Amino acid sequence: MAKAGITTRDKDYSQWYLDIVDQADLAENSGVRGCMVIKPHGYAIWELIRDALDQRIKETGHVNAYFPLLIPKSYLMKEAEHIEGFAPEVAEVTRAGGEELAEPLVIRPTSETIIGATYAKWIRSWRDLPVLINQWANVMRWEMRTRPFLRTAEFLWQEGHTAHATEEEAEQETLKILHDVYADVVENVMAIPVYRGLKTERERFAGAVRTYSIEAMMQDGKALQAGTSHNLGQNFAHSFEIKYQTSDNREEYCWTTSWGASTRLIGALIMAHSDDDGLVLPPKVAPLQVVLVPIFKTDEERSMVLEAVARLTAGWKGRFRFKIDDRDNLSMGFKANEWEVKGVPVRVEIGPKDLQKGTVAVSRRDRPGREGKTFIEQAGLDEHIEGLLDEMQQALYDRALAFQRVHTFEAADYDEFKQKVEQGFVRVYFDGNGDDEDRIKAETKATVRVLPFDQAEEAGRCFFTGRQTQRIAIFARSY
Amino acid sequence: MAKAGITTRDKDYSQWYLDIVDQADLAENSGVRGCMVIKPHGYAIWELIRDALDQRIKETGHVNAYFPLLIPKSYLMKEAEHIEGFAPEVAEVTRAGGEELAEPLVIRPTSETIIGATYAKWIRSWRDLPVLINQWANVMRWEMRTRPFLRTAEFLWQEGHTAHATEEEAEQETLKILHDVYADVVENVMAIPVYRGLKTERERFAGAVRTYSIEAMMQDGKALQAGTSHNLGQNFAHSFEIKYQTSDNREEYCWTTSWGASTRLIGALIMAHSDDDGLVLPPKVAPLQVVLVPIFKTDEERSMVLEAVARLTAGWKGRFRFKIDDRDNLSMGFKANEWEVKGVPVRVEIGPKDLQKGTVAVSRRDRPGREGKTFIEQAGLDEHIEGLLDEMQQALYDRALAFQRVHTFEAADYDEFKQKVEQGFVRVYFDGNGDDEDRIKAETKATVRVLPFDQAEEAGRCFFTGRQTQRIAIFARSY
Repeated sequence: MAKAGITTRDKDYSQWYLDIVDQADLAENSGVRGCMVIKPHGYAIWELIRDALDQRIKETGHVNAYFPLLIPKSYLMKEAEHIEGFAPEVAEVTRAGGEELAEPLVIRPTSETIIGATYAKWIRSWRDLPVLINQWANVMRWEMRTRPFLRTAEFLWQEGHTAHATEEEAEQETLKILHDVYADVVENVMAIPVYRGLKTERERFAGAVRTYSIEAMMQDGKALQAGTSHNLGQNFAHSFEIKYQTSDNREEYCWTTSWGASTRLIGALIMAHSDDDGLVLPPKVAPLQVVLVPIFKTDEERSMVLEAVARLTAGWKGRFRFKIDDRDNLSMGFKANEWEVKGVPVRVEIGPKDLQKGTVAVSRRDRPGREGKTFIEQAGLDEHIEGLLDEMQQALYDRALAFQRVHTFEAADYDEFKQKVEQGFVRVYFDGNGDDEDRIKAETKATVRVLPFDQAEEAGRCFFTGRQTQRIAIFARSY
Repeated sequence: MAKAGITTRDKDYSQWYLDIVDQADLAENSGVRGCMVIKPHGYAIWELIRDALDQRIKETGHVNAYFPLLIPKSYLMKEAEHIEGFAPEVAEVTRAGGEELAEPLVIRPTSETIIGATYAKWIRSWRDLPVLINQWANVMRWEMRTRPFLRTAEFLWQEGHTAHATEEEAEQETLKILHDVYADVVENVMAIPVYRGLKTERERFAGAVRTYSIEAMMQDGKALQAGTSHNLGQNFAHSFEIKYQTSDNREEYCWTTSWGASTRLIGALIMAHSDDDGLVLPPKVAPLQVVLVPIFKTDEERSMVLEAVARLTAGWKGRFRFKIDDRDNLSMGFKANEWEVKGVPVRVEIGPKDLQKGTVAVSRRDRPGREGKTFIEQAGLDEHIEGLLDEMQQALYDRALAFQRVHTFEAADYDEFKQKVEQGFVRVYFDGNGDDEDRIKAETKATVRVLPFDQAEEAGRCFFTGRQTQRIAIFARSY
């Protein structure tokens, strides 16, 4: 029962994703290779995600600031691993104001270097620490293959950059962001359960000592990295001379962290919840939570119904994000379809017959077709919708969690692993090294997503090497 | 009685401005020519201004979206006046992903061109109109002389871009933004009175038919353009083929507008209100509105005073933006100075003696020294502060308005004009042409800031040409 313009997930999952982005009016390609236009509906979702992140970033003691878009190329060269990771994909400004620049400037692919250079000037004493700063910014990575939200040359994100007096504090910060900011927003606002854990050396950020990540499962069983938090140790502090004087007058290098979440999250949102009828949005990140569609034929019916709608919604401002769809050139069916495709959680229809009965028809987006439609008394409609939005938020999370559990497999050996990893995540004992990871990736396209925090209590047999080990890894193919 | 680190305004106004930016921790230069780091205190002010603008932009029916940072150079070439205005100051990306680009990409100096190319795809019928979109973004203009906030190579702003079916609608939109968004925020949130009006041809935006502006007066009598709104006529519609089908099936070009306000506004805020002791902020844009400084010597005093502070501020969350400054390594005088320099509107001091008397000492930032300090009963402190914040918001506006009035002069002839324009704005009859404006600018550095909306009812004698005219112009030197 798929909609016109939307390929079913069964038929072609990749095309389904692109169709949702297109049909729900979220984004489109621009005249610039790999750069998308984020359309108003897509951007409104981003504003809700951004606000949820920003609130938690501030509640955990951080402040926002803004650092330059352009970075002298020499800055990027200072941290060896970092430049190796990012040099191949930077965009370079070589001319400005009509003249060739003496030194090229790169558009920031991430800002550790320019912020590191700044912190080196700001930090003098242990009293200046910790420095807990976040910035909201656009960044640019010249990727070869791009897909809207998931991988684009330019994307929007927040990047936190902190400096601490001790290794322990930096590690605590890294974990606090992972749990209290990223996992909290993705699970409790976006309704997507995640696996949390440590990246292996192969997968960690260029220049980090440890990278932690939250990994969400998409409906095709692939992983999407939804936020990463890096303990940078003293690597960048050494490269940029970020030093401080201790309370007993010794000079020490700082311990720094960085962490980011981006417009990719919109890709995760789409692929975690949506169906063949279009976008499905958890109410907390739905720009419109309720749409009311008045039904009428005559002018007399029109004014009666619109009057009832005005009465019903009188107290809604500030309580729900809602819209009254009184466009009179479009059919009821067209409107219903449009709001379904765009993922509005609750659709309320009200016509002359409803006026007589004192009811309205309420459709919930997470249950397609007749199953999701019920007739509700007009009296108490607000409370009903309030309850329904809460229920849907929870139901979407529960559904995604059930899907994640059913599609997280075990595997006793590499053969079983190969079979299971086609269908979802595989949680296994693994004591292989980086070369083993490379081989598994080459043969199955799967990588270690995380070494989850909930490790095994007892040792077991590595599916790949056959050796006994206590280390558990979660593998998956990924976006 | 100037502070250490702050040059007085009398001595060197330019240096005073830079000292405030530096001492109040608002921004600093970065390692990239002309690009500033906006520090947390400066960025927090920007967040408040941004939120005030964003709220009004949405209330007037607009939605946010996001368009690419990079623009193909060929797009910029399509509108003749536009390219002439912006070509000399663009930064060009010529290499990306390790390869030379076939066509250079410019970092947006403004987005009329890429948005115009997008609207041409989006708009088909009169039913698609109006398109009312805003974006929050960074832009880049390679300026030769830069000053933090006032003129920087990269700056943050919002740019609105709308398309309409009729000329009249486009004109209404242009004026609505000027009055209901820009003037409202600058006057009622930032407490800076403005002159509103039309730009002359010499001063209008590259590619516009009409540019409207609000002009604020700084304490040195110079003007700062605080927001501009452009009626672009069909210029960009012709260049980018932005066409629509009318309800009677004719094909027409759209009428478009654009409008922007930027981090320059922080420069306006500094120069409108601050004094030789540091930053002065209207409460509505003060990241911290109240700071409480507990005073104590012994541990016993410390716990008694902090307990009282906790009790006094128990209901303040969500009511005031406040901070308790209980740093115990800094003197009372150091703290008072720091919060004064940073422009916190209200400072509350409370020590053991106050506990006995049931009072606190309240200092208001807009009245320096003893004049601004009063002793207030602890009971009812919240209401007192609430009233004080309102009063200060109004007092700062009134002071700026009085200053603006006193420093807006008339001039009967060019000699008088030359003398007055050294001291402030000059409001005169003016029927000169663009060449006359050029000559006046060359000789006095003053330009027509606006042809104000409140024009004269009767004709008068042009100060420059001596001819009779009804046209009134406001001239000033400007930032």
